[in-house]
Amino acid sequence: MEIYLDYQSAKPVDPRVIEEMMPYFTDKFGNPASLHNVGDHATEVLNHSRKQIKDFLNASEDSKIVFTSGATESNNLALIGTARRYKNKGNHIIISEIEHISIRNLAKYLEREGFKVSKVPVDQFGVTKLDKLKNLITENTILISISTASNEIGSIQPYEEISRIAKENNIIFHTDAVASESALSINVEETPFDLITLSSNDIYGPKGVGALYLRKGLRLNPVLIGGGQEFGMRSGSHNLHGIVGFEKAAEIMEREMNSENKRLSEYRDLLIKEIIETIPKSYLNGHPTKRLAHNAHFRFDYIEGESLILDLKENNIAAATGSACSSKTLEPSHTLISCGLLHEEAHGSLLFTLGRFTQKEEINKVIEILPGIVKRLRLLSPLTPPEILKKYNEVKN
Amino acid sequence: MEIYLDYQSAKPVDPRVIEEMMPYFTDKFGNPASLHNVGDHATEVLNHSRKQIKDFLNASEDSKIVFTSGATESNNLALIGTARRYKNKGNHIIISEIEHISIRNLAKYLEREGFKVSKVPVDQFGVTKLDKLKNLITENTILISISTASNEIGSIQPYEEISRIAKENNIIFHTDAVASESALSINVEETPFDLITLSSNDIYGPKGVGALYLRKGLRLNPVLIGGGQEFGMRSGSHNLHGIVGFEKAAEIMEREMNSENKRLSEYRDLLIKEIIETIPKSYLNGHPTKRLAHNAHFRFDYIEGESLILDLKENNIAAATGSACSSKTLEPSHTLISCGLLHEEAHGSLLFTLGRFTQKEEINKVIEILPGIVKRLRLLSPLTPPEILKKYNEVKN
Repeated sequence: MEIYLDYQSAKPVDPRVIEEMMPYFTDKFGNPASLHNVGDHATEVLNHSRKQIKDFLNASEDSKIVFTSGATESNNLALIGTARRYKNKGNHIIISEIEHISIRNLAKYLEREGFKVSKVPVDQFGVTKLDKLKNLITENTILISISTASNEIGSIQPYEEISRIAKENNIIFHTDAVASESALSINVEETPFDLITLSSNDIYGPKGVGALYLRKGLRLNPVLIGGGQEFGMRSGSHNLHGIVGFEKAAEIMEREMNSENKRLSEYRDLLIKEIIETIPKSYLNGHPTKRLAHNAHFRFDYIEGESLILDLKENNIAAATGSACSSKTLEPSHTLISCGLLHEEAHGSLLFTLGRFTQKEEINKVIEILPGIVKRLRLLSPLTPPEILKKYNEVKN
Repeated sequence: MEIYLDYQSAKPVDPRVIEEMMPYFTDKFGNPASLHNVGDHATEVLNHSRKQIKDFLNASEDSKIVFTSGATESNNLALIGTARRYKNKGNHIIISEIEHISIRNLAKYLEREGFKVSKVPVDQFGVTKLDKLKNLITENTILISISTASNEIGSIQPYEEISRIAKENNIIFHTDAVASESALSINVEETPFDLITLSSNDIYGPKGVGALYLRKGLRLNPVLIGGGQEFGMRSGSHNLHGIVGFEKAAEIMEREMNSENKRLSEYRDLLIKEIIETIPKSYLNGHPTKRLAHNAHFRFDYIEGESLILDLKENNIAAATGSACSSKTLEPSHTLISCGLLHEEAHGSLLFTLGRFTQKEEINKVIEILPGIVKRLRLLSPLTPPEILKKYNEVKN
């Protein structure tokens, strides 16, 4: 059996979600735009799903949920839609240095359309520097896009403070909440987010569905043009079974988030403690305490993350080096470089992300196996210094 | 039980497709971008699905299938992607007068970006006028986008001739094949399409998935920006279970299209014959013979399509007035107006679209019920002339 510890790349769909979706594949499959019974039912279902997603965020009824095909599309709508809508107000956008690749590439794309982009630096733990953010704001700043937490190193961002800074300066604040969607309870009554990117699969719903939350009164230019669905902001026939699955996933997540956080953070802490104690020259990346409950991101001197992944794969353990969204490149993680690591340090990284179906025995298995893998690779590595080699050769293990 | 005759708006997912998808929700859910076993399997699956969609079109291995979230997104990529990519070559785009709303709205959108759009007229049957098309072509024409068939009146377009005209003039030819996807076998070896929009749900696959076919060598600018998936032309994590369902749907459709066309065209012909014969002042819209096997589009003098739909709804029969994608507007169908109908004629339209689960008894039920509904509405209508009222009052029915 595979030990799957790469929940940030892809999650299985919860069986309770699948059960909820089933009738919508075969019987209740209508198009909300139709005028007959099947269409009317689809409209009701769609409205119900919208309400559930709002509940998940504790959002008011007069806010909007725009359903999309996933997080990337939501990010596109948030950044491109805001930039084009508000370009008469200003042309300056701020993101953080460690945003997800979709945000970083969107920022580059908008630069080619004439927008100016600034990147706020982060500290050694990958946390946005608030004083730097404040300094970057100009009267032309129309948008700040900073995620709730790093999808890679799991550091939780000071999004409450950021939202207040944005509000004080009358700037739209977008957050990509995908990385933290299963771990942080977002409450838009308390925290004045303007735009929030959500993904269904990241809370164990089906893939190919996501949403963008818009606070009351906000309108964006559409990115996908067509029949004018989703308040004119996102065209295309509704993925009704997907939306129903997303709704169910949000309902379950709302209910179970706290207990799951407790369970997973225990496993995570065990994993971190054991690995750091057992393996010499091993380190935790990201913030020691302000981190997502499911994220354990390590680095090991003298060896490469890719080799670790391959050795783990031989042992039927699935892990990642960083973000799956850019894992097939050989570039070191931009996030780790932004935290101040050297290229060779960043290359030795290994990311475990735990999830709903993770069992304690699986964590124990990793604790048992990983030190041997690291040892084997270090014995092969030309970078390993003599004193470490010596230490390894002394111990029979 | 509902009699569902609105397959053009939304289709149920075939149970064989659902069965195929199931393991991909829970066990085989990986991200193709990951480096571990689950990710490797996802990559294999993705490649296999691409190959099946190519087979469905009889496309060569060196062509490309870009997976999208559905037909609207594929149309966006085709039109926006081509226009922006080839704008240095020319700024002129040709569509037909009866394109789907997503194409028409994309054309308007591109006009605002500085492109010029011409619309080829159609004849009384809704068939593109080839001589007019030829006359519209200029040296600045970079793209022709004409669907394989009208999603509304079912008229099949002369796409082979269009593809040859485009090729002779070195113009990219895009077709939205969604309306005909369950009825016309597309063979890109024989017909030199450059870009083809496909939708999964329109061949009884899951919603929220589609594809754009690109002939060898063609590259487009992306519309959704992010991690660079799908050859850099469509970013976003893959909707793997959706893609697997799409693949299965294409495999089944390829095998069963001919026999289904035979079955459905018999039902359709029966429906058309009986309705036109039984109901006075009733007409068939679209082409009498060159029409999709599942499409029966009528109009009835003196009454409105919306009233017909509501009366049919009372009888648990689901039909449409035209395109579901714009059915909640009160505007008359642009397609029917383009065919030369007057506004009041276009308003009396009723569309039945048959599908995989349509039974002959359902067609018989419509034949039995519809004349009475038309009669009732005509007796209430201020537009019905005395001679028709007289005729109705004479017959006890």
